[in-house]
Amino acid sequence: MTDRLERQLAFLLEVDKLKQIFRQTYLLDETRKENDAEHSWHFAMFAIILAEYAPEPVDMLKVLKMALVHDLVEIDAGDTFLYDEAGQADKAEREAKAAARIFALLPKGQGGALRALWEEFEAKETPEAKFAGAMDRIQPFLHNCHTCGRAWQEHGIAADRVLQSNSHIAIGAPVLWDRVRELVDQMVAEGYISEK
Amino acid sequence: MTDRLERQLAFLLEVDKLKQIFRQTYLLDETRKENDAEHSWHFAMFAIILAEYAPEPVDMLKVLKMALVHDLVEIDAGDTFLYDEAGQADKAEREAKAAARIFALLPKGQGGALRALWEEFEAKETPEAKFAGAMDRIQPFLHNCHTCGRAWQEHGIAADRVLQSNSHIAIGAPVLWDRVRELVDQMVAEGYISEK
Repeated sequence: MTDRLERQLAFLLEVDKLKQIFRQTYLLDETRKENDAEHSWHFAMFAIILAEYAPEPVDMLKVLKMALVHDLVEIDAGDTFLYDEAGQADKAEREAKAAARIFALLPKGQGGALRALWEEFEAKETPEAKFAGAMDRIQPFLHNCHTCGRAWQEHGIAADRVLQSNSHIAIGAPVLWDRVRELVDQMVAEGYISEK
Repeated sequence: MTDRLERQLAFLLEVDKLKQIFRQTYLLDETRKENDAEHSWHFAMFAIILAEYAPEPVDMLKVLKMALVHDLVEIDAGDTFLYDEAGQADKAEREAKAAARIFALLPKGQGGALRALWEEFEAKETPEAKFAGAMDRIQPFLHNCHTCGRAWQEHGIAADRVLQSNSHIAIGAPVLWDRVRELVDQMVAEGYISEK
């Protein structure tokens, strides 16, 4: 076996750990929280099905690769809940350190390309990163709406923070943002979350 | 919300159930078996990292879409263990019935295109389906090798059946097939599985 293949397989075995990084989002049957591997798969499915709502043309292969790798750094850095302000403050630093270790497991050129893709996703500047960012947010948002706001309730998150923290959806998939606002209004009207 | 978007979101919520379809493969830390959503994500990662071993040019977007949707039918049909002969006998029939329900949740054109992609994957005739098929097999194969053959031992699977049932890897990724044979020899030499 070549050194190149050996490094590729070692990376592929290492990333199995993503299946043990749990998020705050509940599965729709509410039996447990979902993990990062499941979320990454679901995010990619959202991107495939909702591609037509990207407001500008996107390279879908790039979007899917972003979906699949976007959480790898959490193997070391852990999942940071979207509404955890203290966690969000040092998230970038923790994740950069994780990226340095994880992507370096791969052969140099391949690891560098994947890390650049992750950085592009994080920067949210290109059409692909904007659309992918919206898909990354709308999946857990819908899970919350369809589990009576359970994760929001557990963390005392009100409607204003939900809208603020998910506002990237307005940029990456404007048509879906209308639906998000409708659903938040509905969650408030039904008493699942408070307005502020 | 348009009827089209409503159907797309209903499909995306329905496929969350894939996270509850468990396979025979163990996670590498052996704490539990993996589920279909995790496997689909990992299979897609294998395709990204090992793309250079496809023996002919492949459309990687198509390969990744195949990886992401290939197990959706198991939401209704359940996972059929690769070495379960009785289960394999009526697998196609059970899965076709599942496909008819699940892909029909989507708007017609979109559901039809996704179903066609799944059928192409199943038929293993195009370059994309051949390469994707190899990735689908090599991921659980490596998990078995790195958990001392646990799932094989639990089901009394010997080396000859492992090679026979994974022989598609020789077609879809010939370079990796050499590695598969080396690893099977090693598993036998270390006493984790018997030769026949």
